[in-house]
Amino acid sequence: MAKAPDTPGPGPASERVRLRRKRERGSYDRVVLDAILDEGLVAHLGICGAGGQPIVIPVLHARSGDTVYCHGSAASRTLTALAGGSPACLTVTLLDGLVLARSVMHHSANYRSAMIFGTATEITDPREKTEALRAVVEHIVPGRWDHARSPTENELKATAVLALAIDEFSAKVRTGGPADDDEDYALEHWAGVIPLRTIPGAPEADPRLADGIAVPAHAAAYARPGSPLPRR
Amino acid sequence: MAKAPDTPGPGPASERVRLRRKRERGSYDRVVLDAILDEGLVAHLGICGAGGQPIVIPVLHARSGDTVYCHGSAASRTLTALAGGSPACLTVTLLDGLVLARSVMHHSANYRSAMIFGTATEITDPREKTEALRAVVEHIVPGRWDHARSPTENELKATAVLALAIDEFSAKVRTGGPADDDEDYALEHWAGVIPLRTIPGAPEADPRLADGIAVPAHAAAYARPGSPLPRR
Repeated sequence: MAKAPDTPGPGPASERVRLRRKRERGSYDRVVLDAILDEGLVAHLGICGAGGQPIVIPVLHARSGDTVYCHGSAASRTLTALAGGSPACLTVTLLDGLVLARSVMHHSANYRSAMIFGTATEITDPREKTEALRAVVEHIVPGRWDHARSPTENELKATAVLALAIDEFSAKVRTGGPADDDEDYALEHWAGVIPLRTIPGAPEADPRLADGIAVPAHAAAYARPGSPLPRR
Repeated sequence: MAKAPDTPGPGPASERVRLRRKRERGSYDRVVLDAILDEGLVAHLGICGAGGQPIVIPVLHARSGDTVYCHGSAASRTLTALAGGSPACLTVTLLDGLVLARSVMHHSANYRSAMIFGTATEITDPREKTEALRAVVEHIVPGRWDHARSPTENELKATAVLALAIDEFSAKVRTGGPADDDEDYALEHWAGVIPLRTIPGAPEADPRLADGIAVPAHAAAYARPGSPLPRR
């Protein structure tokens, strides 16, 4: 698991991404950020809608270099607003464990969270769009792209792909056991961590799959980076 | 897993939560919504900050009847803004599987997502605050509250607890295998689903735990509702 650096790392790119709370958990280090973006399967994308009403939707994403791509239907309200230049916030959170302390108030969670602020741009060039979709598919299931039919021109048109530059960002990481108040260590309550992992099950073949098509390695041996437990 | 109802369920509480995209996956049914809120461990809470910049933060939450509680530091910028009456959006997403289709563009994810729009109110009454915190702790680790020291008056003061009414909401659920274009079923690509589950590992005791304190059942037999796989 990524760890917040012990030595001071890079500073925030802007005041608005400077962490105020629990700063010791914070990081402006791209290595920490990228590991979270690359392991996470779901991102939560926020925009400000009409009347200052925030809208937070789950999206599939992928990082490619200094860019995060998200895709969705070209008709999506949220993606249309984003492509029109609305400021966005993309957050990816990995939950690594539940921290049970001796006191209720020191209960916590071990997690890694990445947050990017920016303005999305829509990818319109078909070749760039294809590369962005390849990044998303390969992010979700590494090795899959070459084992599926490529998008047609019309399919590309029906899909919106947005790019968000990794410029203003922060990451937060909590690891380790509970941190109780000194006087509470004498209490007889159990304290520790319940670790959590996202685990793939055995691949379930489509009932319409033709006979003789074997499960490919990218499905049979599926694993997330940073997910050390073997499949079940 | 919850399934979108086959028969028409209740309608949306307002136009702004009416689903536009993939409406066949949508639901305004509280049973579907509550199951997602109750199983999910992390919520993503969005507000609109200065200059129309959305901010999406991960929070621990709990549903209690028709209310969702979130807690955090009383000094948190985001929680302070929310308590001041900023509109909020709370989204909880559970990822159940990766859907591998014969064509790239029909790749998808099986998921359950709940979204609530509203304006948060801050809980200030100490008794109500304690009950809200109990709901959060019991949501995360059922059975834990009675095995930890209760909050003191000062601890309560240092914590902000927000309540969001479940009034305007929607849920989206995708289940099942890939849905390819008719002509693609003849392709020789494997297609199916890689199921995903969040699995607890064996509890890790705090190194400072006194001898003779056994792992309690709420940690040793920890499981999420809707998570059918046994612990590893």
